[in-house]
Amino acid sequence: MIRDIEGGVTAPAGFRAAGVACGIKRRNPAHASAPLDLALIVADAPASAAAVFTTNKAVAAPVVVSREHLERSHGQAMAVVVNSGCANACTGEAGLAAARAMAARTAEAAGCAAEHVLVSSTGVIGVPLAIDKVTRGISDATQALSRAGGDAAMRAIMTTDPFPKSKAVAVQTPAGSFSVGGIAKGSGMIEPRMATMLGFLTTDARVPPDVLQRALRRVADETFNAITVDGECSTNDCVFLLASGTSGVGITRDDDPGLIAGLRAVSSHLAREIVRGGEGATKLVTVTVTGAASLEDARLAARTIANSPLVKTAIHGGDPNWGRLVAAAGRSGAAFVLDCASVRVGPVALFVQGVPHDERADDAAAVMQAKDVTVSVDLGTGGSHAATMWTCDFSAEYVRINAEYRT
Amino acid sequence: MIRDIEGGVTAPAGFRAAGVACGIKRRNPAHASAPLDLALIVADAPASAAAVFTTNKAVAAPVVVSREHLERSHGQAMAVVVNSGCANACTGEAGLAAARAMAARTAEAAGCAAEHVLVSSTGVIGVPLAIDKVTRGISDATQALSRAGGDAAMRAIMTTDPFPKSKAVAVQTPAGSFSVGGIAKGSGMIEPRMATMLGFLTTDARVPPDVLQRALRRVADETFNAITVDGECSTNDCVFLLASGTSGVGITRDDDPGLIAGLRAVSSHLAREIVRGGEGATKLVTVTVTGAASLEDARLAARTIANSPLVKTAIHGGDPNWGRLVAAAGRSGAAFVLDCASVRVGPVALFVQGVPHDERADDAAAVMQAKDVTVSVDLGTGGSHAATMWTCDFSAEYVRINAEYRT
Repeated sequence: MIRDIEGGVTAPAGFRAAGVACGIKRRNPAHASAPLDLALIVADAPASAAAVFTTNKAVAAPVVVSREHLERSHGQAMAVVVNSGCANACTGEAGLAAARAMAARTAEAAGCAAEHVLVSSTGVIGVPLAIDKVTRGISDATQALSRAGGDAAMRAIMTTDPFPKSKAVAVQTPAGSFSVGGIAKGSGMIEPRMATMLGFLTTDARVPPDVLQRALRRVADETFNAITVDGECSTNDCVFLLASGTSGVGITRDDDPGLIAGLRAVSSHLAREIVRGGEGATKLVTVTVTGAASLEDARLAARTIANSPLVKTAIHGGDPNWGRLVAAAGRSGAAFVLDCASVRVGPVALFVQGVPHDERADDAAAVMQAKDVTVSVDLGTGGSHAATMWTCDFSAEYVRINAEYRT
Repeated sequence: MIRDIEGGVTAPAGFRAAGVACGIKRRNPAHASAPLDLALIVADAPASAAAVFTTNKAVAAPVVVSREHLERSHGQAMAVVVNSGCANACTGEAGLAAARAMAARTAEAAGCAAEHVLVSSTGVIGVPLAIDKVTRGISDATQALSRAGGDAAMRAIMTTDPFPKSKAVAVQTPAGSFSVGGIAKGSGMIEPRMATMLGFLTTDARVPPDVLQRALRRVADETFNAITVDGECSTNDCVFLLASGTSGVGITRDDDPGLIAGLRAVSSHLAREIVRGGEGATKLVTVTVTGAASLEDARLAARTIANSPLVKTAIHGGDPNWGRLVAAAGRSGAAFVLDCASVRVGPVALFVQGVPHDERADDAAAVMQAKDVTVSVDLGTGGSHAATMWTCDFSAEYVRINAEYRT
């Protein structure tokens, strides 16, 4: 039994958070106050910790440091520190030193070992991180830590996201109730070189680190790893999950229905909100692939369709162009049998077992006027595997945002 | 020794061609004459033939038929027939019958076996091919066949290409001289659902079919298969190569320097012209990857960069955004060592062995004002493998073209 609750990343017991302005982000002259650009999330005591990171081989310094810390601490963490406005990526040895310093300052402030701190950055690539500003920010944030600080932390991790993203749920289980909360940012990239997906999750369930890690991996694969805005994968992407145990509800298996349901409710909401807030996006598109010979094939076809510029522009234009869906599935590398394949837009079947039904194009076009559009492709192999991806449409605004010369 | 000559696909001896209007393409009321939409290329006698086809599993009927014919004829062909305006793709059994009929009518007109005819179509997916119109077109084209018909054939295969594409060269070898010619079309896609790359090459060298096939594959991999407009791969893509032998120059090896040089000169010109004429394209971008651990890695990284929406929009905006090149290379799956990697825009090194040189950004921005831009990424592995891809920039016009509701 799951229900939505308030509080985002500080909804689960045992966590405090804060978001402050430390001067990394440029101030907007139109706004009275400086933009929040440093977030701190601190557990009352060392918590179980899990993480998934970018698969990009050009990893940013904070990713290197957080990976090291999680390994050394055997999956324990007490603080997460995040700055926005500077990705600390492609910054060489100096960048690595800055990320380590960021962790050390946080450890001093939180009263824990440096290896109990996870570090994250998002913003411009290739620019040095101003560690003096970060240090001042950590100090201010430590003063500001509170159980109500989830909202400020949520805002402090944004770059050019059009709206902030947070979610929390209470999970009722036979053993008692616990909660799961989280905040995330997506890519707005109005300022060129900005693009990172970050997610920070908490729970007050008591979960051993290895169980927590496997549960996070499982849920991330079907939520955060099942979204795409433009097929790009940043140097800084990461999702952290801390479990305080404060609720007293113990979880011992990574397929625990309550834990998975709670993580999934929070993660899938945040993931879809990231897509909805994608650059230039006007629609949230759910891509469903069925009839695949394997799960890998289903995911491969869904990902290819979700990243196809022709599919994404057709959806932007409200064009029920099933030929582009067939062509994308066909080129994906997944097993595909054209004569048995089918395509639907919403409930409207436009191509059924290899036969076009263009007489239904107007019905499909009407369905595509909605903000949320589902497209479904059956690969026609007779296989029973399926996968879902979330993507957005592709607008001229995306190009405008990303082609603007950085100043 | 290679030099450019006139004549396109009919420059090599032993071939005649024609392009006629048969009524498949809609007539533009603004134009006095009906648009050319059927091309015929006929050899004086059965010629050695080779082909490369789309790797899309959703293959169009003409691809199925041409593959069958090449197999049955053991690499011999006498005629190539092509219609534009209808892809004859996703058209089921009726489409297959139409493609076979198209070959049969051509065989009658050319006086050869049906299996000596290669068939190709480009245009709208999912629409039945009007075989009566095609039949009339074949009859008219047969009457019109001439040694000067390469130009009309070149125009008849266009869909919404902004300009026609043809090339021919004479190759001087110790054994004598022969020529290579060709025409191609790219994707204009102003009318949604249109997108296909077609290439038709001829030579008057005398080459056994198996040698011709291996030579074409080799050259296609580094020319037609090394270009991208939007990463999409059509249901109808194909390149055919016919060798008449009329020059009397015999070639026995697939790595024959003259044959490869001649094919490469024609193919690389046509391939780059396709990119230059890509939807909404304003720049031809050469992507070069060096320092790769393997040829596969080099090609993978080059392809990922060439298809990256963030790289393509940055180039459109004239933004020397090396961080996006690093991020694309890093996520490509190729081995990548960030601290040893380098990025150049034209001759300007913006990132050298892991160190940013943003002070050179203005120089790089100046280089990017040109119509032709080269970006180079060294993957930093110390490997000696390299690859080149050609792509275009990504403009709001691309989105406009492809999002327009088809009417």
